[in-house]
Parts: sequence; C-alpha cells; structure tokens
Amino acid sequence: MCLQAHPAPGDAVRGGVSQWRDATLVWEFVKCGFKPNSCESMFRFDRSLIICSRYVCVVQKAYQETDSVISTVTTKVKGFAYTNTSDMDPRFWDVADYVIPSQGDNSFFVLTNMVVTPKQIQSRCPELPNPSTTCVDDCDCVVGYSDPRHNGVQTGLCENYSTTVRTCEVHSWCPLEIDTKVPERAILAAAENFTVLIKNSVTYQKFNFHRRNIRPHVNSSYLKRCEFNRVTDPDCPIFRLKNIASEAGEDFQEMAVKGGILGILIDWTCDLDWWARKCYPKYSFRRLDNKLSANNVAPGYNFRFAKYYKTADGEETRTLIKAYGIRFNVVVFGTAGKFGIVPTIVNLGAALSFLSLVPAVGDWFMLTCSRKRDLYNKHKVTYLSEDADAESVSMGTSYGTQ
Amino acid sequence: MCLQAHPAPGDAVRGGVSQWRDATLVWEFVKCGFKPNSCESMFRFDRSLIICSRYVCVVQKAYQETDSVISTVTTKVKGFAYTNTSDMDPRFWDVADYVIPSQGDNSFFVLTNMVVTPKQIQSRCPELPNPSTTCVDDCDCVVGYSDPRHNGVQTGLCENYSTTVRTCEVHSWCPLEIDTKVPERAILAAAENFTVLIKNSVTYQKFNFHRRNIRPHVNSSYLKRCEFNRVTDPDCPIFRLKNIASEAGEDFQEMAVKGGILGILIDWTCDLDWWARKCYPKYSFRRLDNKLSANNVAPGYNFRFAKYYKTADGEETRTLIKAYGIRFNVVVFGTAGKFGIVPTIVNLGAALSFLSLVPAVGDWFMLTCSRKRDLYNKHKVTYLSEDADAESVSMGTSYGTQ
Amino acid sequence: MCLQAHPAPGDAVRGGVSQWRDATLVWEFVKCGFKPNSCESMFRFDRSLIICSRYVCVVQKAYQETDSVISTVTTKVKGFAYTNTSDMDPRFWDVADYVIPSQGDNSFFVLTNMVVTPKQIQSRCPELPNPSTTCVDDCDCVVGYSDPRHNGVQTGLCENYSTTVRTCEVHSWCPLEIDTKVPERAILAAAENFTVLIKNSVTYQKFNFHRRNIRPHVNSSYLKRCEFNRVTDPDCPIFRLKNIASEAGEDFQEMAVKGGILGILIDWTCDLDWWARKCYPKYSFRRLDNKLSANNVAPGYNFRFAKYYKTADGEETRTLIKAYGIRFNVVVFGTAGKFGIVPTIVNLGAALSFLSLVPAVGDWFMLTCSRKRDLYNKHKVTYLSEDADAESVSMGTSYGTQ
Repeated sequence: MCLQAHPAPGDAVRGGVSQWRDATLVWEFVKCGFKPNSCESMFRFDRSLIICSRYVCVVQKAYQETDSVISTVTTKVKGFAYTNTSDMDPRFWDVADYVIPSQGDNSFFVLTNMVVTPKQIQSRCPELPNPSTTCVDDCDCVVGYSDPRHNGVQTGLCENYSTTVRTCEVHSWCPLEIDTKVPERAILAAAENFTVLIKNSVTYQKFNFHRRNIRPHVNSSYLKRCEFNRVTDPDCPIFRLKNIASEAGEDFQEMAVKGGILGILIDWTCDLDWWARKCYPKYSFRRLDNKLSANNVAPGYNFRFAKYYKTADGEETRTLIKAYGIRFNVVVFGTAGKFGIVPTIVNLGAALSFLSLVPAVGDWFMLTCSRKRDLYNKHKVTYLSEDADAESVSMGTSYGTQ
Repeated sequence: MCLQAHPAPGDAVRGGVSQWRDATLVWEFVKCGFKPNSCESMFRFDRSLIICSRYVCVVQKAYQETDSVISTVTTKVKGFAYTNTSDMDPRFWDVADYVIPSQGDNSFFVLTNMVVTPKQIQSRCPELPNPSTTCVDDCDCVVGYSDPRHNGVQTGLCENYSTTVRTCEVHSWCPLEIDTKVPERAILAAAENFTVLIKNSVTYQKFNFHRRNIRPHVNSSYLKRCEFNRVTDPDCPIFRLKNIASEAGEDFQEMAVKGGILGILIDWTCDLDWWARKCYPKYSFRRLDNKLSANNVAPGYNFRFAKYYKTADGEETRTLIKAYGIRFNVVVFGTAGKFGIVPTIVNLGAALSFLSLVPAVGDWFMLTCSRKRDLYNKHKVTYLSEDADAESVSMGTSYGTQ
Repeated sequence: MCLQAHPAPGDAVRGGVSQWRDATLVWEFVKCGFKPNSCESMFRFDRSLIICSRYVCVVQKAYQETDSVISTVTTKVKGFAYTNTSDMDPRFWDVADYVIPSQGDNSFFVLTNMVVTPKQIQSRCPELPNPSTTCVDDCDCVVGYSDPRHNGVQTGLCENYSTTVRTCEVHSWCPLEIDTKVPERAILAAAENFTVLIKNSVTYQKFNFHRRNIRPHVNSSYLKRCEFNRVTDPDCPIFRLKNIASEAGEDFQEMAVKGGILGILIDWTCDLDWWARKCYPKYSFRRLDNKLSANNVAPGYNFRFAKYYKTADGEETRTLIKAYGIRFNVVVFGTAGKFGIVPTIVNLGAALSFLSLVPAVGDWFMLTCSRKRDLYNKHKVTYLSEDADAESVSMGTSYGTQ
C-alpha cells in the first residue's frame, strides 16, 4: 500500500534539495564562464517562467474584472424610390412601405424584391398543376385531403386549371400565389442608396459606465451630411446600405434578388482603467446567412405577409406579398475590463506559484547535470538513521538522485 | 502589539520544519511497513491534492479561454388549415394569417385560438354588465369617468344593455369585445401539424469561428422531406410543432386553447481545440411560461391586435382579435473553449501552489503523529540564543510544537 | 551570456534565506518587546497577505462557478384613453391602437404623440417649399431627379404649392406629410396612467434553476389590485408607466411629446448555494437614450408606419402615421453563482501562493532591517568552496546581501 503511494524519486528530491539552492547557485555563477551552454539553458527556463507570469499579469490584463455589455439600439432608415418595371404598376416607395415591421429591436428589414398576389379572397380554385395535383375526374380528388406541399384543402372536385390541364380544386385564398417567377432584377434595386442612422447606447452595469456610439465631438451639422467611411468618417453613425454590403464582401444587387442577412457588428471591447481610458465602438460588417453551399435549401431570406382589405359589400380580401429583402442585424458585443482586486490577487497568486518552480528547477539542474552533483547531493540531502542522534550520517544507499 | 500580530503556533512550525522534510520522509519510508495506516492516510491526502490539480487542469478544461456565442436565427413556418367551427365562418388559414408578426428575430408566434370582434367603430354603447357598471338612471353614470377595469369613458347616460339590464354608456370601439367566451377547443387545432424550418448561424468572434445548424452532410433533397427526430433524424432542422410541445412535456391541444410559450433551446457548447473538434447544435425543448401555479394570473399567452378597414364613406372600422397562441422562442446559448495561454498559466499556477502544500502536510505529520517526533523536532527546528554564535543551541522552553 | 541571465541579487537571497526563517522568527519574537515598531510593521504585511487571500475566497465568493441568465419576457399593457384635441377628431384608444407592434420580444412601444397624414394616394403633388425645391418654371425641375432630403422623384414640372410659392412636382404619396408641426402637448397624455404586467421567467441552464418574477407568495387577488412600489409593494410585477418614468428621473409628459426609450432593468444576480439561497428579481429603471446633449440629432424616438386601405374602386390609399412614443425595453441581466470545485481549487491555490510569500518577507526583514542581520546571514546562507568538503566555509567575497 505504502509503495503504491510512494512519490516519484524526482518529487522527493525536489523538496529536499531546495534548502541548498543558494549555495549551489553562488558557486555555479562563479563557474559559469567555463560551461556557458548548460548554464544558460537553465537560466533560460527560469527566465521564461518569470516572463510567463509577467505576460499574464500585464499584457493580457489578467488583473481586470470584466463585465459584458447591455445595449440599446434604434435604427432609422432614410430613402425613397420610384419603381417602374414590367412586373408591377409604377409605384413610389417610402420608409413606411419597405421597412417591415416598422419598428424592430436590434434589426430592420428592407424590402428589395417581391412576388405580389393581389385581390385574394377566401374561395375555391384549381390547384397549381404538378404531378400530385393533376386529375382526370373527381375520383382523383379526396374531399378534405391536404398535403403540406399543396396550397389548400381539396374540395373533391376536379376542375380545369387551363385549357389543357385539370387539377383538383381546393379551398384557399384565391387566386393562388405563383412564386416561381421572382423578378430577376430586384424591384427595389434603388434600396442600395438608402441610408440608416444607428443609435446605440451601451451600459456596463458593474462599472456604472454608459456611452453612446455618437461621440461627443460629433455635432449636429456634421451628422446631417456625413456618411460612414472607415477611413475618412469612422465616427459617423450613418451607413449607406450599399456600403454595408460591400464591406461585408457582398454585392448588394445580387443579394437584393433573393434576400439575405447582413450583420452590423459593433464591438464595444473597452479598457476602463483610468490610465487607458479607451472606449469607442468599432464597426464591422459580415453576411450572417449562408450564401452558397451544397445544401442550400431556400437560399436567401424571405417571408410572406398580407395586407387585408374589405370590399364595399364587407367581403375580406387581401394582397399577399412574398417579401424578399435584406435583414440587417445590429449585433452589439464586447467586454469591459477594469482593475479589480480579486482577479489581481488570483492571477498574481497563480503567477507567483510559477516563481516557486525556479528553485526546484535550479536544484534539479545542480543535482542532475552539474559536474559536482555528488558534492551538492551530500550537502543538500541529509539522511537520518533511527538510532543515531547525530546529523549528516550518510546511509549506504543514497536515495533519490542516484 | 506584537503579541497580537503573533502567528498561530502551527504556522510558525509549518514554515520551520519544511527544511528537514526530506530527511524525515526518507526515514518514514523505511519504517512505513510497520505502521501502514497512519502513513497511508498521510500519502492519501498528499495524493488527493495532486489529483485535485489534475482534475482542474485536464478534466474541467481550465486551460481553455472561452467566448460566448453570437447567433442569428431565421424561422420559416409551413402549413395551412381549413377551419369550420360553430364559432366562426369557414375559413382557410395560411402563414400570412396565423404567424404574427410576419417576421420576428428569435421568436415566432402561431395563432391557435381567438376571440374575434368584427366591425368595431368609434362610437358609444352600453358597458358590459357587472356590479360596477350597472345603473338605474343617468345619475349613476359620471361624464368622463373611466375605470381601468371598464371598457371606455362614460358619457353620463344610462342605457339598456339588454331587456333586463341597464348599464352606463361609454365612448369606445363598439360593439365591445366579449372575451369571456374563449372557444374551448382551439380553432386552429390543426396547427399541431405545421412545421418550422430553423436556420441558425453562430459565431464565436474571439476564435473567428462560424457555423450553421444545417450540417454539411445534409443535402437539399433530404431537407425537403426530413423532420427532426431525436433518434432517427437528429440533424434535421425542421420541427413539427406538435413534437416540440411533446418533447417539452406538454400537450399541444391543451396549450393551444389558452396559449403559452415554448422554448426551442439550441446549445452550441463547443470544444474548439484541434484534438477535440466537436461543435454540433444540441436541441432541447422546454415550456418557458408557468403552466399552473397557485398565483396563476392570466395564464397562457395572448395579445390583442386589430385589422383596420375603411368603409365606402370613409369611416374607419376595425376587426379586433384577441389572439391566443404559442410563442416559440429560439434560445441559442453556449460557450466555446479553446486552448489559451493565459488560463493555462493561471490555472496551472493555482494547481502548482497546491503541490506546495505537500511538504507542509508531510512535516505536520512527522512532527505531530510520528513516534519519533522529538528526534525530528530537534533536527528540524533550530533555536538561536542571542549571545551564542553557535548553531543548534536548544533553549530551555521549546517553541511551538510541544 | 550568462551574466545577462543573472537573477537580481535580491532574488538569489530570497530563496537562500528561507531555510532559517524559523530560527530567526523565534528569536525576533523574544526581542519584540524592545523594538515593537519594525517588528509590528513586518507582521502587518504578512497578515495583510493572509487577509487578502481570505477576502478573495470568502467575501468575493471566488469559490463559485457562474452562469449567465436565459430569460423570457412577456408584457401586457392595460389602459385606454379618449382624446379630444384640436389636432385630431375625438377618438377612443385601446391597447390594439397604441401598442405597436402588438407583440414584442423584450420591448413594447406605447404611442403617445403623432403626426397623422390621412388619405395619401400614389400620385403627383408639388414638393414642400424649401430653398432647394422652389422653382420658377419647369426648367428648374429635372425629370427623375431625387434628393434624399426631398419627398419624392421629380416629374419635371413646376407647380403652384400655394398662391405665392411654386415648387417642383414629385411622384410620391400625396398629400405629403408635414411633420414640422408636432403637437406640443402629447395627444395621448393619458398614457401615463396605463399599467403594464411584466411576466419574466429566467433559467440558469448550468444549475438547472428556473424561476419567475411572480413570487410564490403572491396570489391572484393581490395581483389584480397591486401596483409596484419600491417600499410597499416591491414584489408586484405591475408597473404604472408614469412611475417607471419618474423612477428613471424623467417626466413622463415631457418624454411623451418627442418620445424616448426607458429601460426596465431586472437584475437576477443570485447566490444559489444552499446556505445562502437568495434569488429575487431587483427592478430598476433608467432612460436608455440621450435626452439632451450638444449633438442631439433627432432627439427622442419615433418611426413611421402606415395603415393601408382600398377605396371602392380598388385604388390603394393609406394613412401615414409618424409615431412618437416611449419604447420600454425590458433588460434582464444577472449572474448566478454556485459552489464549484474548479473555481474553489483555482482561487484557493492562487491565495495559497500568497502565503508562500510570508517566509520570504520574513527573511527579507531579518536580513535587511534587523540589528542582528550579520548573525542571521551567517547561519542562513551557506557558501561552498569548490575544493572544500566542509560545511559553512565563508568565501572571501560574500554574495548578495552585503
């Protein structure tokens, strides 16, 4: 049992030799000129331990306690467009038309392309033709049958979809949406010139620190005409949508057709110590959804919504819109660090214990690699015999290092 | 003053004895066979300190630095239903009708039940009867009086609500909503078969790591027909609403009546070290609101919204809908760990300092429990007398351990 | 090379002297009565190191591992108002009218003021007059020209805006919105008396801990009549909007005119150890946007939305609303701590290594400040000569401490 719990020989020696470290060090310094290589490598290791500790404490700011950011974002999109394409009637678009929903928390959606199905009413109509909906007569259509890939609940009748095709009739919003023909050029291509003002207030609760992304030296007249530019206007919180896309490495017009998600990342990583008071937002941009990949199901970003109307005779009608567009997510992240007594003590403590390795390494070198290791061993380690009360009685078999 | 600051006797000895630890250890090893129990227990303790250190460093991955996840979620619900209940006209429902709002950040709401009050207009009508609104004549009604529990601002008149009851008249949207009769079976009970595709991209900013919940080996044709199943299809990001509820331990139909909140939890806890590259989303489901409790005020989940219309003569009218339904919150959480030099140094350092306890424990054992403690004490601790320059002069009163 | 790696003299001594610390300490205690000041200050330092360690471990709960909160929030606003101002027709407002959007994740918006532009249709109308839109004849207006500060795309015609001013005609939603005249007193001033019920469920995933802000002892009848009050009803989750503003140090009526953002901060910082089971939400309130500052562009909070109608002949018309109001952000934050073996080991380890400084400091004092430093030095440090096998042979040049 005891042997099992026996510490490794190296361990036993490590403790024992430490008392003589200084004596041996003093001597090794004297001799150092003669055997520079081995001596140097030993000091290199000791020194690297010390550098390690310093790295943790100073460079990595391990003396700081941290807090993560609490953020409030408001966005305001500006711009309008007049569209006159073959897909739609001429139409003027402003913010109330193309920003959906009109108010969001940390994101806003700009409509760029769409499939509009106007004047839908609750009624019955023949399904869109595809292998599973075509029929020859009513026997092919089951009353009440519905398939998730279809567009409504079958009435049991087989109707003429066109002069050549017959399909099962369904209860649905009719006419049915035909979303296979998405305009190949985004209808609201002009959206690339819209701008967005982002107001962002952050709080580090633990340090009672509040700040805005609009910096104090930025005045009102500057904000009326400025536009964010990484080089010339890095503090302007007004972004042109086209530039957001291009900074993210994307082509706005290409994204606008099928939609997508762009991230506006605001990094508030801060050092709040008084000797290093730096806390500015850093903007970056990245596409957050997957553009292209082997398994690209339903690429882009779209959703359906409807505007509901009532006709003069009280019947409900709606305009269904399959909206393609770019969702801009404002992602605020960051950590603030500030001198804190607890992390200082913990990290300094941890670093200190590395210094306690220095004597052990020194001993190990002296007892293992030094030419005079027998001399050091004799003076370093003391052996006690049970019946002898005298000091320094060497046992026949020396323990540990031989 | 000095005595007050005096360290405890044990403290003074602990430091003093450490220089002789090795000598005593060497000897105790020799004798260990005779007194295995005490010896063993000492080593047990020392060993446990070492195991502790290893546990921190290896098992708990204390060598890693961590980052928390930045996530983007998009959801797309699919499904339709045809309702034909006594509460409402027959009606076909699709995504644009039952997902409110049509676009959300990390959550989506599926309408399952409702109280509809159509054709409301700005006008005057008698209050719903309850003890505080019934009246005998106009004197019981105060012009301009409003109570938060009432439905409008009193006009000062007392009108016939029915042939038997008279109540105060109020300015309001009339007719008033009667929300006491919620359909007992959810109108959109069919919603349980709707499915939702969840696309989730995550980023660990610190490690420049990006990933989607749709894994690379999942191809497009699989995604068209698959459905999440913990056993057979754990990688499919398409969830049937009914299954989400049942995985959360809830009955969908029961929840659908009064509404509720279900959490779709995606855990992205990751080990990003190259030797353990595992980073897959883990899905779990949980009801987030309180189903039943003693203080269950307004159980379930509902909110009111209105669709606004204009009649042919320009008057505004609205359909008020008290919407009951299930809000699905997609909660993405997780921490990624990766080898980092700072936590390695800090934690290794902290662990190392435990090893420095080993000699102290050894000394304490030898000086306290060992049979030969007087011998060790004599050799271990040296007493200096002021005027003697000789070593090892024992003082009349021994210090510390006796 | 070797000299470069030479440790500082103080370093070398520190290790070497440690073996004699006890002997010197014993003696210094005896002498302490004579020189209390120096002795005391040394112990003061040693003691402060120990107190430091205790502070980290006990007071700062460094033995705990932590998790951050996952939160679900639902809000329900209650209240109605009847407005009868010169700016608008008399109108009754309820939740479906003034909460936009009707359902939010962690925030809700209460409409308090507005600029309404009814009966807009897609058509042409002369621009609002300002220096860049006034014209003399059609030559001043460029077909298709649009400026972000204008309200539409120019048709190339110069039309009479009024009897005195001519401006360029634009394609737009006409009539144009004139948003310079915001009502000076908030239209929905009565909103200050609306109340909001906030239901908040939190989860600490790591500790499998779930809790609601409605505490178990709060029963249903209490919740029907209570209102949050920091002193008398701190557990009531129903807040009056006016009180939220005043707790945040703001005047509701003042904010209501131009809008703003108020934060409802819920702090769930918890100690989950069984001996200190305390986990209650703590509410606080703060204005999150900037009220006043030199660069206050577009102060307050507003956004535009539209209600779309169709006339009897199928033409689309809309009511544009520039909505001013207060957005209430429910910000849930907090960290739970629970006893954890890893942080305990790490922090205890770090604290331990401070204790290892105690002997070093003791040695340093004895060898530097003590009157008998030569005696201690002689006994403490041993010098080895290369050819002598005897102990304690002083070299001609003593190293380090002299």
